[in-house]
Amino acid sequence: MVNIGVIGYGYWGPNLVRNFAETSGANIAAVSDLDPKKLEVVKKRFPAVKVTTRFQDLLEDPGIDAIAVATPVNTHFELGMAALRAGKHLWLEKPMTETSLQARQLVEEAEKRKLVLIVDHTFIYTGAVRKMGEIVKSGDLGRVFYYDSTRVNLGLFQRDVSVISDLAVHDFAILDYLLGEHPTAVSASGINHFPGTPENLAFITLFYESGTIAHANVSWLAPVKVRQILLGGSKKMIVYDDMEPSEKIKIYDKGVSFTDDPKQIQEMRVGYRTGDMWAPKLDVSEALRIEGEHFVNCIEQGKVPETDGQLGLRVVELIEAATSSMRGRGETVYVKNLRKAA
Amino acid sequence: MVNIGVIGYGYWGPNLVRNFAETSGANIAAVSDLDPKKLEVVKKRFPAVKVTTRFQDLLEDPGIDAIAVATPVNTHFELGMAALRAGKHLWLEKPMTETSLQARQLVEEAEKRKLVLIVDHTFIYTGAVRKMGEIVKSGDLGRVFYYDSTRVNLGLFQRDVSVISDLAVHDFAILDYLLGEHPTAVSASGINHFPGTPENLAFITLFYESGTIAHANVSWLAPVKVRQILLGGSKKMIVYDDMEPSEKIKIYDKGVSFTDDPKQIQEMRVGYRTGDMWAPKLDVSEALRIEGEHFVNCIEQGKVPETDGQLGLRVVELIEAATSSMRGRGETVYVKNLRKAA
Amino acid sequence: MVNIGVIGYGYWGPNLVRNFAETSGANIAAVSDLDPKKLEVVKKRFPAVKVTTRFQDLLEDPGIDAIAVATPVNTHFELGMAALRAGKHLWLEKPMTETSLQARQLVEEAEKRKLVLIVDHTFIYTGAVRKMGEIVKSGDLGRVFYYDSTRVNLGLFQRDVSVISDLAVHDFAILDYLLGEHPTAVSASGINHFPGTPENLAFITLFYESGTIAHANVSWLAPVKVRQILLGGSKKMIVYDDMEPSEKIKIYDKGVSFTDDPKQIQEMRVGYRTGDMWAPKLDVSEALRIEGEHFVNCIEQGKVPETDGQLGLRVVELIEAATSSMRGRGETVYVKNLRKAA
Amino acid sequence: MVNIGVIGYGYWGPNLVRNFAETSGANIAAVSDLDPKKLEVVKKRFPAVKVTTRFQDLLEDPGIDAIAVATPVNTHFELGMAALRAGKHLWLEKPMTETSLQARQLVEEAEKRKLVLIVDHTFIYTGAVRKMGEIVKSGDLGRVFYYDSTRVNLGLFQRDVSVISDLAVHDFAILDYLLGEHPTAVSASGINHFPGTPENLAFITLFYESGTIAHANVSWLAPVKVRQILLGGSKKMIVYDDMEPSEKIKIYDKGVSFTDDPKQIQEMRVGYRTGDMWAPKLDVSEALRIEGEHFVNCIEQGKVPETDGQLGLRVVELIEAATSSMRGRGETVYVKNLRKAA
Repeated sequence: MVNIGVIGYGYWGPNLVRNFAETSGANIAAVSDLDPKKLEVVKKRFPAVKVTTRFQDLLEDPGIDAIAVATPVNTHFELGMAALRAGKHLWLEKPMTETSLQARQLVEEAEKRKLVLIVDHTFIYTGAVRKMGEIVKSGDLGRVFYYDSTRVNLGLFQRDVSVISDLAVHDFAILDYLLGEHPTAVSASGINHFPGTPENLAFITLFYESGTIAHANVSWLAPVKVRQILLGGSKKMIVYDDMEPSEKIKIYDKGVSFTDDPKQIQEMRVGYRTGDMWAPKLDVSEALRIEGEHFVNCIEQGKVPETDGQLGLRVVELIEAATSSMRGRGETVYVKNLRKAA
Repeated sequence: MVNIGVIGYGYWGPNLVRNFAETSGANIAAVSDLDPKKLEVVKKRFPAVKVTTRFQDLLEDPGIDAIAVATPVNTHFELGMAALRAGKHLWLEKPMTETSLQARQLVEEAEKRKLVLIVDHTFIYTGAVRKMGEIVKSGDLGRVFYYDSTRVNLGLFQRDVSVISDLAVHDFAILDYLLGEHPTAVSASGINHFPGTPENLAFITLFYESGTIAHANVSWLAPVKVRQILLGGSKKMIVYDDMEPSEKIKIYDKGVSFTDDPKQIQEMRVGYRTGDMWAPKLDVSEALRIEGEHFVNCIEQGKVPETDGQLGLRVVELIEAATSSMRGRGETVYVKNLRKAA
Repeated sequence: MVNIGVIGYGYWGPNLVRNFAETSGANIAAVSDLDPKKLEVVKKRFPAVKVTTRFQDLLEDPGIDAIAVATPVNTHFELGMAALRAGKHLWLEKPMTETSLQARQLVEEAEKRKLVLIVDHTFIYTGAVRKMGEIVKSGDLGRVFYYDSTRVNLGLFQRDVSVISDLAVHDFAILDYLLGEHPTAVSASGINHFPGTPENLAFITLFYESGTIAHANVSWLAPVKVRQILLGGSKKMIVYDDMEPSEKIKIYDKGVSFTDDPKQIQEMRVGYRTGDMWAPKLDVSEALRIEGEHFVNCIEQGKVPETDGQLGLRVVELIEAATSSMRGRGETVYVKNLRKAA
Repeated sequence: MVNIGVIGYGYWGPNLVRNFAETSGANIAAVSDLDPKKLEVVKKRFPAVKVTTRFQDLLEDPGIDAIAVATPVNTHFELGMAALRAGKHLWLEKPMTETSLQARQLVEEAEKRKLVLIVDHTFIYTGAVRKMGEIVKSGDLGRVFYYDSTRVNLGLFQRDVSVISDLAVHDFAILDYLLGEHPTAVSASGINHFPGTPENLAFITLFYESGTIAHANVSWLAPVKVRQILLGGSKKMIVYDDMEPSEKIKIYDKGVSFTDDPKQIQEMRVGYRTGDMWAPKLDVSEALRIEGEHFVNCIEQGKVPETDGQLGLRVVELIEAATSSMRGRGETVYVKNLRKAA
């Protein structure tokens, strides 16, 4: 049984508490939040859980094995480092930290202490993203030509971080999972429509050495909610529409090929192939539950999580690069080539 | 009656011929094409129309008042200039020319000779774009925050021009019509997935002095056909989905506003407003027909077309700037500030 | 404060308990169920709530003001009557009873004892149905020509009642609410595809004296989930798509009118009108919460619920008539004309 | 070469003329219409085609091999019989005739004279319907549980025939093609909302000996255009949405099965199966072209058309039965069991 303390009971914390409460092998031991009213809610819903306004109480409690941090991103580093130094396994909300330097330090601290460090990139545990990963890795998609994501809706405006940290962060994690390749360069543009607030709309392009190109269109200022990814390969193409209640993933047997047929060459040099469309059945288990069980499992068996600190670090590095490019109106920013461990 | 000669009976030429044949006040006098087989098709369908493989025959024919050029873009300048010098009014397919220098020379030649020069940016004559223009100009949309266009499908790959010239060209023209403002800078990225071919996928951001930002996502390599524009204002937001058989334009009474409410400020500083949605009835007349009648009208009454050479020139300038930025991986390219004549 | 006892903690009971627990003015006092395991679940989540396997305990408890019955329909009459005789206000799940005779006896018993009797036709408390009611009652729709509902999905097959009792029951309640008119005749057809089970697919037509016609297509055997109502009037037409996340109600300014224009008469005698479409903002409060507060309110103020026993009785009468017609392969079944109290 | 004369150049006649003009093996020899203005239109487009206001001229012309009749349905019998008696092969628009007696007489006359008689049920020649037929006939769908069609839109109101003849006629033909079984009974209801006009809205249920049930919901008074068929089998289920630009046919690997699992039996006796969805590539050739070539082929090779007079007759019989039931408010009407020739 892994005893977990949760720091932060704001927007996402309640989901973590509910989820761990129902995860086999996990037990919610304590919750801390600066706001006593929120702790009253915890107490009412979960009478057996200890509550406190001091996060230090959780770190000092020898009965707690792991700490989950669900506070604003600018506190992740301090709280995460304190938890690791207290010998606790660590669950960090995304994005992992404000800077890649902070992320790197947390990764090193966790490795040194042989503690599990997971970053909550929940999408990686969804049936849809895993199915896409399966298709890419099997080679059925062929060479990955492009990834094109639209992730827009009205609100919720963040006070402290831009729409890149809030929404494009999902694309950076999904790309890392799907491609197993880190981009070499980034070009981004964006805007804040309200003075003194972070950018609420951004367009980010990622360039990869293999020739893949990726794009994310993210906004807090759209009248409709769109969550759509096009993933184009040389053999197949995928549309992933997360707003669909079912058939979220559609695989099109469509493509383009060069031809030697002189007639077609004269016209446009390429031929088109259009075949069937196929929507595979997806695992509909709740992603957060799967991730919770995975965290418990990693702690108990000393394994490395799929969304470990290294992935979290690479994502933060892309947020930094994209933000830097955005503030330079699209200027190319080169990314250090951090590869996944083989 | 305006007698028209059409040069080029390839992909778009047949539409022009059919359209002018049915336009009151217009008469198709002659068609030229290098391919005699295509001329046979013309002869069969329109026995009264003269056909020739020499475009010069059209220019030399004193009975012809206007020339429509529907040939590959790399011939537009030469053919257009020859037509103007022969004293003919001129209809040019989009994009107007390969370079902005060529476009400027055609504009000057037409002005000098007091000839009508129209560029066939057909979208400007659709009920949907005109309705959007009406709403923007009435002030109902408020300040224009952003324009976000997705224009993707499978094919048709062009041999000689990139997807920017083929698809983003529509967005450049629509933006010019809607905003009446020329961007100051462009950042674009794109890729060609097949060696030796033009870019088949591109992402373009346009920056405006007023604070508006515009984006176009264009591709010949998508498994589904999307033709969607989001137009966000401070008072209302529009979704224009051109693939919808009806209700192409949806106007959302949605928005974001700053608030002095201390509770909301603490959370995110902004408030949201969600109201009704409204899909106005649109004029469903064929845009090409309206444009044809407009051309005839401009010739007969000495008026300046809505999509005149100046607009065509501004569009070509944006294609140049976007292409230049794309080849520099997103580097900012500044645009000379060409304003519309008041 | 109204103290409520809930009988039945199966499929719907947990929703009632959760809902009343959060309804101001209501208090969950006790829950009974035949299955002790289900009572353990209640105990764990709501430690202060009494649990028992004997429903009689609830009836005998003088601290309980009202009983909510969420058991299979064949027990509704017995349990409901016992609750009323014990002097308790009564909340009954839909359909109210197995037979109209039973429903009539419950209505009479409640009236005699001046107890509140509500039937849980939740749809009547949704923002969408209330908006439709508003439009019909305002006269904006004009004369109601037709109501056409499709309510199909895969499962859940019921053991004891047909798809009419399970799904068409919603249409019967909504029609009663919208039209304020009881049909005069019913024709229905249906089928059970698996021997020994109730009908899993049915088509029901209702005829009204005013000329309105209504139709419901209900099925447990469809590959896709559809919840759509077309409501056509002489002035406007409505599409209500309950699967839409937003814009559930779309109002079309479309219609047909007779014409005296001799040309049109020659062709088809009618003219068409097509105008704007409009999707009004809907109240998105949870319907069950509104209904719970309404029940408490009716008890405290001695008011008659909107979905009272009379409405429940009329719905049961339509289920009987439709079932009878269905078993006669569509033969017309006449309905006694039960009118709403003025 | 088959020389064809077309009688009637109103709504559908121009499509037939254009189609036969482009069908290899066919030649449009003459067109007759009572309206000289319509004949002028023919003359202008097809100068080589003879035109006349006397249909008799076509019958008397020994150079004409076949007659296509595209006039109002109340003239089909007289014109069709005259054509057959003149020794011409016959193409009849749908529905074949006003009465089944008339249809039977035409069938007999054509058989006696060994002339080809085709009824233009165009849907049978579409890629979508043929694909459905393929799946049903292969056994992949399993036993056919139901066919459920929605075919509604605003207009076009007919003057002389009801919406059953205009729209449900398609379902009757498609059902005949898919099932190869004639229903044994029909129950229908419908209404005319405007005095003195035919029914503009109808609901028809067909019962089959095999246990299949079929339903068609047809209307000229709906605010949206729907063309959707659900086809449910014991192994697979199909959704055919004809308004989709692509992926018109979706095949769902979904179903329901009885189970011996005591736990599930207790709950609902059935189990559910949900698998992949698959949209096969469809033949996108124009159906009317395929049908035209099929007609020519049948004439030249003495074959029986797929949509022969027998099919046309069965469809007319269903229109009669449905209309009769509709006027009796749903009363069951039994259908003589006309089987397809083996």
